[in-house]
Amino acid sequence: DASAKVIDGKSVAKQIREEIAAEVSRMKDEIGVVPGLAVILVGDRKDSATYVRNKKKACESVGINSFEVHLPEDSSEQEVLNAISGFNDDPSVHGILVQLPLPSHMKEQNILNAVTIEKDVDGFHPLNIGRLAMRGREPLFVPCTPKGCIELLHRYGVEIKGKRAVVIGRSNIVGMPAALLLQREDATVSIVHSRTKNPEEITRQADIIISAVGQPNMVRGSWIKPGAVIIDVGINPVEDATSPRGYRLVGDICYEEACKIASAITPVPGGVGPMTIAMLLSNTLSAAKRAYNLQ
Amino acid sequence: DASAKVIDGKSVAKQIREEIAAEVSRMKDEIGVVPGLAVILVGDRKDSATYVRNKKKACESVGINSFEVHLPEDSSEQEVLNAISGFNDDPSVHGILVQLPLPSHMKEQNILNAVTIEKDVDGFHPLNIGRLAMRGREPLFVPCTPKGCIELLHRYGVEIKGKRAVVIGRSNIVGMPAALLLQREDATVSIVHSRTKNPEEITRQADIIISAVGQPNMVRGSWIKPGAVIIDVGINPVEDATSPRGYRLVGDICYEEACKIASAITPVPGGVGPMTIAMLLSNTLSAAKRAYNLQ
Ligand SMILES: NC(=O)C1=CN([C@@H]2O[C@H](COP(=O)(O)OP(=O)(O)OC[C@H]3O[C@@H](n4cnc5c(N)ncnc54)[C@H](OP(=O)(O)O)[C@@H]3O)[C@@H](O)[C@H]2O)C=CC1
Ligand SMILES: NC(=O)C1=CN([C@@H]2O[C@H](COP(=O)(O)OP(=O)(O)OC[C@H]3O[C@@H](n4cnc5c(N)ncnc54)[C@H](OP(=O)(O)O)[C@@H]3O)[C@@H](O)[C@H]2O)C=CC1
Repeated sequence: DASAKVIDGKSVAKQIREEIAAEVSRMKDEIGVVPGLAVILVGDRKDSATYVRNKKKACESVGINSFEVHLPEDSSEQEVLNAISGFNDDPSVHGILVQLPLPSHMKEQNILNAVTIEKDVDGFHPLNIGRLAMRGREPLFVPCTPKGCIELLHRYGVEIKGKRAVVIGRSNIVGMPAALLLQREDATVSIVHSRTKNPEEITRQADIIISAVGQPNMVRGSWIKPGAVIIDVGINPVEDATSPRGYRLVGDICYEEACKIASAITPVPGGVGPMTIAMLLSNTLSAAKRAYNLQ
Repeated sequence: DASAKVIDGKSVAKQIREEIAAEVSRMKDEIGVVPGLAVILVGDRKDSATYVRNKKKACESVGINSFEVHLPEDSSEQEVLNAISGFNDDPSVHGILVQLPLPSHMKEQNILNAVTIEKDVDGFHPLNIGRLAMRGREPLFVPCTPKGCIELLHRYGVEIKGKRAVVIGRSNIVGMPAALLLQREDATVSIVHSRTKNPEEITRQADIIISAVGQPNMVRGSWIKPGAVIIDVGINPVEDATSPRGYRLVGDICYEEACKIASAITPVPGGVGPMTIAMLLSNTLSAAKRAYNLQ
């Protein structure tokens, strides 16, 4: 008796990638420029290597050039800064991404701040976040995951203005910018976090829920107002003996309960995940367009 | 039958000014430096002239040097930028303030962005707002009015962590940064604005209300949870034939009703107003200390 519409991030992301591919080829035809994304990977984390590989593949699939610098785990901060500085100055690179986490001997803030704001396609620079928070200012880039969440709401025709929205989680990369984006679109936003005393009661008031917590199945059916729209950012491995890998991925939302109460919900996987990479491509395209004053 | 404690901004501000005066004189004794605040006033608005005069007087009262440039209404943007640039380079100036509003032929954003971030004692620079929004980052300056609100909560021993807070209004200079500050202190924050559909219902859930709307007596007794703490930023003139000026100032909160329900409330005037100037002095002192690596 599931009644919620499934918000199909995978297919929306595919559509967006097709749109981007068309724009990229138009740009190449019209001014002979191909957008370029540079990724800096430090160390040998397997998951990070996978993410970087996926990003490169996604670039290829839409015709964006990808560049990579892979530095050893024991590199100095200065070596990373040098790599960034090279890409900052390289006119064929329009977006720069430092794959996190960095080795623990490096100060993340120093490294991220070194990316020139015009190429900061992650949108994590504080100047960018400040513009996102301020009325009348425009960020250069909207951080990819929260941008993907809002894009899903838009593409599924979910009205945001005047609605109650609850964002669960307030990280710099997902929860906080997601709340700012909903607020820019005139939702009435409440932010729930680990110090919130009655998360269930507050969440139950929401017409729109965006959850970015990292707790498998935390949000139960009883937390959800009938008819609410749910965007589940969480990606959490849980043990599963029936799966060949021994685990499977679930969101922050208890999907089986939620899909009976919500009017629409993103699955995990196949919801927000594919949108994040699509938004990275979109930000890289925007950066290239901006560099040439297009559109 | 008023039972709410009055949060006496006037007396707290006085105490803070005494603390600042002591610090200023210690600084002068120890390193021979006197903090300096520069104010740029453009045009002949009477209210702006009054604000600037009050700020200069407040500086004098604590031993901070004040500098002023007063430019005519028909100045060019470039002339204002030149004045800012002069103060940016002047080592005896530690804080720079551009009195708003500017004449309509100037672009506020261009002018405010010209103030070097180390001297932006208003804290309105987007880089600063971004740092305020981000966990693990520290703003150089916290905007004066919201800083004054939180300081009142602190000095009256109001616990913020884990409490429900509602901020009514989301302007760049008051509401939005106030919400970010409450969030930094682990309140669960909701932001109410002109597009919010059920402001009364949401506000009634708050343990702490900060209102910065500009609507006289908008928040009625029925909006308030018994025992809530109320910070009323609003300063609204209402007609009053019994007053010699023909009007008097009231807040956004209907004080007569609120004081019977809240546990503590700021009066208008004499609440947040005096705190704003005290925080400007505090930010100027911090700027000077930072310039000399003190404390
Ligand atoms: N789909 C995608 O592309 C992406 C998915 N993710 C996934 O999203 C999730 C969140 O990621 P991220 O934002 O980086 O995580 P963080 O760990 O940085 O932030 C988690 C947030 O959740 C809050 N929180 C933790 N426990 C609770 C609780 N019991 N109740 C309410 N709030 C709680 C924390 O509160 P506090 O601030 O008080 O500590 C914090 O704000 C993860 O599962 C991650 O894998 C992340 C990025 C991209
Ligand atoms: N004590 C002090 O030192 C200071 C006092 N003030 C006073 O504080 C008040 C607010 O100032 P400021 O922030 O600059 O004002 P702005 O006009 O810039 O912002 C007002 C905010 O209130 C919201 N709002 C307007 N009407 C309603 C409504 N009916 N219900 C809910 N929200 C509403 C607006 O929403 P939306 O964004 O949707 O338009 C907006 O976010 C004023 O009275 C001002 O005089 C200001 C600065 C310093």
